[in-house]
Amino acid sequence: MHNFRLTFLAPLFFLGTCVSAQQATPNLAERLGYPADTKLLIVHADDLGVTHATNTASLAALEKGSVSSASVMANCPWLPEVAEWARANPEHDLGMHLVLTSEWRLLRWGSVAPADQVASLLDSSGYLKPLCDLMAENADPEEVEREIRAQIERARSLGLEPTHLDSHMGCLVYYPQFFARYLKVAREYGVPAMVSRHEILEIGPEWAQMMTPEDLVIDHIYTAGTPDYALGLDNYYRGVLAKLDPGVSVLLIHTALDGAESAGMAGGVEGWGNRWRQQDFNFFTSEDFLNILRDEKISLITWRELAQRWAARK
Amino acid sequence: MHNFRLTFLAPLFFLGTCVSAQQATPNLAERLGYPADTKLLIVHADDLGVTHATNTASLAALEKGSVSSASVMANCPWLPEVAEWARANPEHDLGMHLVLTSEWRLLRWGSVAPADQVASLLDSSGYLKPLCDLMAENADPEEVEREIRAQIERARSLGLEPTHLDSHMGCLVYYPQFFARYLKVAREYGVPAMVSRHEILEIGPEWAQMMTPEDLVIDHIYTAGTPDYALGLDNYYRGVLAKLDPGVSVLLIHTALDGAESAGMAGGVEGWGNRWRQQDFNFFTSEDFLNILRDEKISLITWRELAQRWAARK
Repeated sequence: MHNFRLTFLAPLFFLGTCVSAQQATPNLAERLGYPADTKLLIVHADDLGVTHATNTASLAALEKGSVSSASVMANCPWLPEVAEWARANPEHDLGMHLVLTSEWRLLRWGSVAPADQVASLLDSSGYLKPLCDLMAENADPEEVEREIRAQIERARSLGLEPTHLDSHMGCLVYYPQFFARYLKVAREYGVPAMVSRHEILEIGPEWAQMMTPEDLVIDHIYTAGTPDYALGLDNYYRGVLAKLDPGVSVLLIHTALDGAESAGMAGGVEGWGNRWRQQDFNFFTSEDFLNILRDEKISLITWRELAQRWAARK
Repeated sequence: MHNFRLTFLAPLFFLGTCVSAQQATPNLAERLGYPADTKLLIVHADDLGVTHATNTASLAALEKGSVSSASVMANCPWLPEVAEWARANPEHDLGMHLVLTSEWRLLRWGSVAPADQVASLLDSSGYLKPLCDLMAENADPEEVEREIRAQIERARSLGLEPTHLDSHMGCLVYYPQFFARYLKVAREYGVPAMVSRHEILEIGPEWAQMMTPEDLVIDHIYTAGTPDYALGLDNYYRGVLAKLDPGVSVLLIHTALDGAESAGMAGGVEGWGNRWRQQDFNFFTSEDFLNILRDEKISLITWRELAQRWAARK
């Protein structure tokens, strides 16, 4: 069944509880020249490219402006639809949702790099494995790097110039040997890899030691988990927004229209399934959400804006 | 735009006009021991795997029994859904719709074989080319063979044992260098490659010379073209069924449910688009169609049944 590693790690790493040793460290907003109490938020839609229903909802939410950023899966069939939109809307913020897993039962995908050059990532049918842990058991870090480079290059070949990198299901973050490649590739392309200060501190010292002062590191990453879904996603999002710490945060969401295609993808799974994705779309395109942003004095920002400010800080 | 080679070739090769030299040749039904006036028909749904909407319609039509056979595209994301159904319904007739093109604008796919081993088939983004002619300009026949073997092996690895082979958009049929590979692979796997006697005769002597007496060759292949769509698919199908010659015929159709996913795939193209596919589903699951079969004394048959009779004829 659907057993995302993220599910288990989310309570530990993503809930943004303050680490006492960090209280004195200036948050990213301050380091970028904003007042210390500024709350900047990237509302980030994951999984573009996986289905037409994901693209339809996510591109509409980006156009509305209430979702500020999104990232694409280059291994998935509907990437060309996102790329066509990206070419027509180059001001929008699209990154690479780097893919090392193929987690659904009824639709699956393989690598972008030639299969024989990333064989350690693939199963006997040529598909990526369903879970990060299964991937990590055999994956050669060299092949991981080759695959993520190929994904970036496919998107670029279609005219989609990514503003940032992030990691589908967190596979590139939770294993030091892959995290090093994630950072290396991001630095070479001159774009941020999505990493949060609190996440890094809590995973372990080995992760923090891989970072350099040149790396743009946001303060918090929030994302709903299955217990939040059970209690109501609206409640979860309202809670996150009401208690948002100052600094730069990312709220990871998964917008898609419910319907036969999304239900087929989910294959009966509720967690990160079709109903969840429609609820994400509904909440983040609602007037209610915009009102909360205004009331809580939260400003939306993009990865492109962050990176430009970061480059200009010197 | 959508410029299938099949569109132009259909009037020449697929309409089943009798070739005078062939009048004396016994049709395949006779050769299999049926009375000479027997009309056997495979109603064949193409393109399974390409979308969830295609799978939903086509698997329902197979279960109803009014579509007798279908074939799958192993390069496409929803192959695992078809394979799951095939494992649960092994009595049904599923073949490989061998893929050398990726013809839609908004969703695309690459090879199943490692990209570096079939580089002559791929564009600079790693996708198959949109048209047979574009594919044929550069395709190395050795790489064509490698790719179609990889497609068959992916399906088999998922528990789908193909009953026959056919060719998406006809790419394997219309070029002698690829036709030879199509026949070679079918013979090795011991399954029929979809080829019709009239098609072969009309394409040219080179094609006929590649056939051996051991190859199972059906009499006619029918499929609607864009002019038929403009005049009404129902009219076309009624006409084909009313005038069906004795022997073994295949009627190629494309069943899918209309909706956002199918419309996204078609991208505004009418020919072989979403409306067409829904009309195919409607006609071939109607009582009307079953009544026509009865009135015209047409019996549905499968590739598996044909191959078994062919093997037993000696």
